[in-house]
Amino acid sequence: MTDHSKAPTVCVSLYLDTVYELETAIEEAARSNFQSITIPMVHRRFERELVEEPLKTAHQCFTRSDLLLTSGQWLNRVICRLSNNVDCDSADGDVRKQGEATMRQEISYAEHLVQTGYVMVRLKSGNCANLARVVGHGLKGILLAEVPMVDLKAAQATWRADVEEDVTVEDPWNWWNNFRSYVDHDTHVKVALEFTADIPKKEEIYRWLGEPVDAIVISSSIFLTNSNNYPVLSKAHQELLVLFHRTLGCHFILKANPEDKRLVHYSDYIKYILKANYVKDPMTGYDDLLEIPLQPLYDNLDSFTYEVFEKDPVKYILYQNAIEQALRDRVPTAELDTRTSIIMVVGGGRGPLVRATINASIKSKRKVKVYVIEKNPNAIVTLSALIRELWRDRNVELISTDMREFEPPEKADILVSELLGSFGDNELSPECLDGAQKHLKPDGISIPSKSTSYLNPVMTTKICNQIRSLEKSPHAKDRIVTSRYMEGSYVAYLKNVYHIDAPQPLFEFVHPNPAPIIDNSRSASLTFKASLDCVMHGFTGYFDAVLYKDITISIHPYSHTRGLGSWFSMFFPMTEPVQIRRGDEIRVNFWRCVASHKVWYEWNMTAPRQSHIHNVQGRGMPIWK
Amino acid sequence: MTDHSKAPTVCVSLYLDTVYELETAIEEAARSNFQSITIPMVHRRFERELVEEPLKTAHQCFTRSDLLLTSGQWLNRVICRLSNNVDCDSADGDVRKQGEATMRQEISYAEHLVQTGYVMVRLKSGNCANLARVVGHGLKGILLAEVPMVDLKAAQATWRADVEEDVTVEDPWNWWNNFRSYVDHDTHVKVALEFTADIPKKEEIYRWLGEPVDAIVISSSIFLTNSNNYPVLSKAHQELLVLFHRTLGCHFILKANPEDKRLVHYSDYIKYILKANYVKDPMTGYDDLLEIPLQPLYDNLDSFTYEVFEKDPVKYILYQNAIEQALRDRVPTAELDTRTSIIMVVGGGRGPLVRATINASIKSKRKVKVYVIEKNPNAIVTLSALIRELWRDRNVELISTDMREFEPPEKADILVSELLGSFGDNELSPECLDGAQKHLKPDGISIPSKSTSYLNPVMTTKICNQIRSLEKSPHAKDRIVTSRYMEGSYVAYLKNVYHIDAPQPLFEFVHPNPAPIIDNSRSASLTFKASLDCVMHGFTGYFDAVLYKDITISIHPYSHTRGLGSWFSMFFPMTEPVQIRRGDEIRVNFWRCVASHKVWYEWNMTAPRQSHIHNVQGRGMPIWK
Ligand SMILES: C[S@@+](CC[C@H](N)C(=O)[O-])C[C@H]1O[C@@H](n2cnc3c(N)ncnc32)[C@H](O)[C@@H]1O
Ligand SMILES: C[S@@+](CC[C@H](N)C(=O)[O-])C[C@H]1O[C@@H](n2cnc3c(N)ncnc32)[C@H](O)[C@@H]1O
Repeated sequence: MTDHSKAPTVCVSLYLDTVYELETAIEEAARSNFQSITIPMVHRRFERELVEEPLKTAHQCFTRSDLLLTSGQWLNRVICRLSNNVDCDSADGDVRKQGEATMRQEISYAEHLVQTGYVMVRLKSGNCANLARVVGHGLKGILLAEVPMVDLKAAQATWRADVEEDVTVEDPWNWWNNFRSYVDHDTHVKVALEFTADIPKKEEIYRWLGEPVDAIVISSSIFLTNSNNYPVLSKAHQELLVLFHRTLGCHFILKANPEDKRLVHYSDYIKYILKANYVKDPMTGYDDLLEIPLQPLYDNLDSFTYEVFEKDPVKYILYQNAIEQALRDRVPTAELDTRTSIIMVVGGGRGPLVRATINASIKSKRKVKVYVIEKNPNAIVTLSALIRELWRDRNVELISTDMREFEPPEKADILVSELLGSFGDNELSPECLDGAQKHLKPDGISIPSKSTSYLNPVMTTKICNQIRSLEKSPHAKDRIVTSRYMEGSYVAYLKNVYHIDAPQPLFEFVHPNPAPIIDNSRSASLTFKASLDCVMHGFTGYFDAVLYKDITISIHPYSHTRGLGSWFSMFFPMTEPVQIRRGDEIRVNFWRCVASHKVWYEWNMTAPRQSHIHNVQGRGMPIWK
Repeated sequence: MTDHSKAPTVCVSLYLDTVYELETAIEEAARSNFQSITIPMVHRRFERELVEEPLKTAHQCFTRSDLLLTSGQWLNRVICRLSNNVDCDSADGDVRKQGEATMRQEISYAEHLVQTGYVMVRLKSGNCANLARVVGHGLKGILLAEVPMVDLKAAQATWRADVEEDVTVEDPWNWWNNFRSYVDHDTHVKVALEFTADIPKKEEIYRWLGEPVDAIVISSSIFLTNSNNYPVLSKAHQELLVLFHRTLGCHFILKANPEDKRLVHYSDYIKYILKANYVKDPMTGYDDLLEIPLQPLYDNLDSFTYEVFEKDPVKYILYQNAIEQALRDRVPTAELDTRTSIIMVVGGGRGPLVRATINASIKSKRKVKVYVIEKNPNAIVTLSALIRELWRDRNVELISTDMREFEPPEKADILVSELLGSFGDNELSPECLDGAQKHLKPDGISIPSKSTSYLNPVMTTKICNQIRSLEKSPHAKDRIVTSRYMEGSYVAYLKNVYHIDAPQPLFEFVHPNPAPIIDNSRSASLTFKASLDCVMHGFTGYFDAVLYKDITISIHPYSHTRGLGSWFSMFFPMTEPVQIRRGDEIRVNFWRCVASHKVWYEWNMTAPRQSHIHNVQGRGMPIWK
């Protein structure tokens, strides 16, 4: 479905090699619909040679004065490019030192100019530790590391018949991976990904979607010319453009000859393509935002949270269908008038499942008596009001208590609950339902009747950085990593993520649980496989649940219930990002641990490398019973 | 040289399979010269089966009462062994759960009994993540992980002609490595290394010396019987025994049939061998103690520190020889009476180099005028007194100032200094001497004339743990890793260490430095190779210096100056231990960075994996100028 109504704002910057009059250049670019210009830090006229004199004295004359533009213009209208003809990582000590001095001077002056704006540096190989050290620390603004999607050398190697497919040309992703690993996954360092004429394999494109790609660099040379003599992109490039913008909301930087008469058409074309393919995402605004999982058992949810639940367009319909189906199955038509099914809605919240039950009863023409059990006194207020005002004629009885302790006057046919977290059991649905199930008739059923959690390893620099930045350090420049944050668990609507392998089922819970001694602790080992070099930042978790028979709800990416919006994925970090090689087996252990007052997960990795056990005793993230 | 004077105390524990009367067993063992007994937690009589009943109720009856011994006896006379017939990591969920429950119960009761004493658990494979999780966290005492030096399966594989050398039998070191990685290198977890009939390759033995081996387990079966019918060990086993005890001061656990009439001979023999081979280490007491490197430029050293310097038995002799040789070379015999050499002792401390200079002058019969420059006002007091009282007739003049700023009345023939740190330049000898060298005559020389730093990667669990435990966490159970400690640098007399590869030269400084613009920043990349699977915790650093011509001082392990005691090795940690595979190339970058007020090192690893850059801007360890 294409929705043009609220088109996205797209920023395109014009990449220039020489600029004489800055303000004029910005104005000209604006006339061609470019929002900013990307310019070299060093003025052509002042190009330097290897000099022995301390660079300080030369500082003032190598570039432009900050007075040429207002600070607002520097911030929003200019991306400063660092020189790319120096080599901070040369084997030649003199070249290296000179490169280092140059870069140091340029980055310092660039940040002086653009402040929290953009500086760009081009990566040319994976041998970039010194460059990373020199330009990648203590940044105020954003450092864009420019990387081509495909290395020209690599492109040739696969193109030429005489070169073996697996020749060791460097994949530019590795340049970036080295660079960002050296700068310790600094949040200020992002990617400016240059589209190349050749498009890499799907999997490699997906890997880029796990990276903090902030800008896409497009050269006019990859444009084709259509019959009307307008520049257009190939279908494949168009798709790429749309994919990156839709997933990451990137900006664009256009490289073209400034004399090119079609300048305006490039930027208009990019904007046109994105507008034409715009699809509204109802979750916009939540992208990659880190949230702490709710603990509806321990905490009392607030009104706002209930309201968000209740807005889910499909959850309650599915519950209603499940209840309706169950009622039909349990009560034959002959007994329509004589038999009243006892339904207990345990964890009623503000009543949506009561509503679903009543609707199911009406639709199926089966009589019901509804007990609604809730332990949150604030929700009780709402439920009481609803019973008084809306459900006066319905057979609804409110029991204000914890479902693990209540003593209802009769046994239930159906137990209805929605105590599911993003990871299925992480809101302690098993513990709660174990308490409630004793009130089920011997043939009574639970909706849901089963929940399963799923897990897969991911690369997601952005999420990982967000978690890292929760750490408060006494000295701003210190690096600090604690179990408090790096062994917690999180909920997020993940977009900027690369899934290293497909999800696998982890833990399963069945309701009612027929075991004589119920044990809700679990442990499992899963083995995944990486098809590309990548970095593993942790695991995403999902669940699916059988409500009744074939009526299910799922946030498993392969079977996600259409429109279901109540749950984002779970995320379990690894304390330190793990470098993974193509073909590596990733073996992980997960435990669900249960003690008298809390439940928690522990996890660790046993291959390709051994990690410590995370969240021991729930030190990072306990779930209180 | 064998020195029997102060024999080491050696503790041997007797390993028993069944014990009926605890106190009697301890007494009997003591009569055979065993200091303690190693006993199973679970009493034979109470051996359990897979039970469904909650273990709590069974808790009291499966083992002995704590009242049988005093807590002092439990602590010092008993090592509690956990069952080794359970499998916490079984693929069978029931076996695993039962194993887990058993282990949990046993470790909890074992710690109740021995408190901060010893508990022992046998590792049987590398598949031990769950075992690690269950027994390896929140320990109060020491958990000894018992591991054989050679796996029986492996021994057979190399023994039998039909099995290829490189067959993938598990190396028991890997069992241990997995276990301790899973428990996050917990300080409470140590090794009980079982000597096997087969002795592994030298390199593998050295690797164990980098591990926290606390006890050696010896079975009576590896003893031979000599002509007098006494049990003795093969020469190779004797050497092993001595090596481990000398390096790590381990305890011993003897496995034998309790009916064996020769029990007393085993323990006596072990003690005899260790006593006979005892060599006094003058550094005893400093083993693996972490120290913060001195900053004699920024801080003023105290009297105690100077005294330690001055006790070095060889340093000043070598300096004296160097000065003497230089005087002889510079002043021909014909000029003995007419020429006075100007010697500046820069950084005089409490005068030992002045003394060396005077001695050299007397021995060489060359006249000298000594300027002694010192910036520490407290040392000035001592120097003034020495000049007044001891060197009244000597031509010694004191200048109380920083050598980078002083203005002497004449130029020097020889600049004598000892500003060397364990890493050569880390006490800023280059920066200081750059300041002083302008007072040298054109043909003047500096003693030392050159210093070089060296580096190699190491495994040293003990040091790494000490650094980690410097981190103070608000919650005792939290894991916290900061650059403040994990990116610092340290000095230590390293014994419990495995050198992954030989040291390589890193940075070099020459004095006087003839460069027109002096740049004391440095950078270098080194590549090492691992010959075994191991864990890299960081790098050890050393230096050597040319005092004059062929007179050198060195703490490089291959060329260590005999008797030189003033410097221990340097240690640079990696934030997280790095798992290394046999054959891996370890590539590391090191930088010496110089800013207006400080100097610091930065380092990172680029292979086998990328690490972040450590100590950025000196955040962990700045050296103040
Ligand atoms: C995830 S919310 C679902 C609320 C509502 N059914 C809905 O779908 O909007 C779970 C509800 O169960 C309640 N709850 C959780 N554990 C409970 C327990 N042990 N006893 C009673 N209510 C409980 C919480 O207070 C919360 O209102
Ligand atoms: C390592 S101690 C050696 C002292 C003495 N030479 C010895 O060998 O025992 C270095 C001495 O140099 C002094 N020192 C360091 N930097 C100095 C500077 N820039 N100017 C003067 N003295 C300095 C310190 O105060 C200290 O006494």
